[in-house]
Amino acid sequence: MYGGIIASVIDCHSTGTAAAAAYRHEGRDMDTNPPIRFVTASLHVDYLRPTPMSGPMELRSRVTEIKERKVIVETDLAVDGTVCARGTVVAVRIPESMMPKI
Amino acid sequence: MYGGIIASVIDCHSTGTAAAAAYRHEGRDMDTNPPIRFVTASLHVDYLRPTPMSGPMELRSRVTEIKERKVIVETDLAVDGTVCARGTVVAVRIPESMMPKI
Repeated sequence: MYGGIIASVIDCHSTGTAAAAAYRHEGRDMDTNPPIRFVTASLHVDYLRPTPMSGPMELRSRVTEIKERKVIVETDLAVDGTVCARGTVVAVRIPESMMPKI
Repeated sequence: MYGGIIASVIDCHSTGTAAAAAYRHEGRDMDTNPPIRFVTASLHVDYLRPTPMSGPMELRSRVTEIKERKVIVETDLAVDGTVCARGTVVAVRIPESMMPKI
């Protein structure tokens, strides 16, 4: 599988995990307002081995640091139980004033 | 512009630059055989500011290290002269035995 797609899914899964962790950190349900969203400050991906296109990808994220405005997330991408790529994302919270109006 | 696309174009431009640098390093023209190709061992992207979708992107790469099997490339992505993202790619040369047959 193309590395740019791998980077994209690791990025998406990591920023989503950062938001989920922030809701939990504040003791809030995820469907409550105001919404919490994160953007990517930096993305690092190690391509450990070729990622086959044969089976479903499994993404598992782990929060390694959580602060009010910054969350660091490590994400493994595995196929058939074998980790093929490993990413680290530094995610930064979007201030409420910059959130798109719904 | 979505960060996954930014990661993808930085990845592509960097591995292409790695191959171009390897041809030059060997004193060969780029249309000579056997072909030289690189894959990505690791990709790091710093998202310095939002990348606007208004104008053409300009990608400029710089080789910071070149060895027989490994090339390190730094790539800036700019729009209207402003660098919006900066990437570092560790590219590894595909052995001839693993190259797809044409």
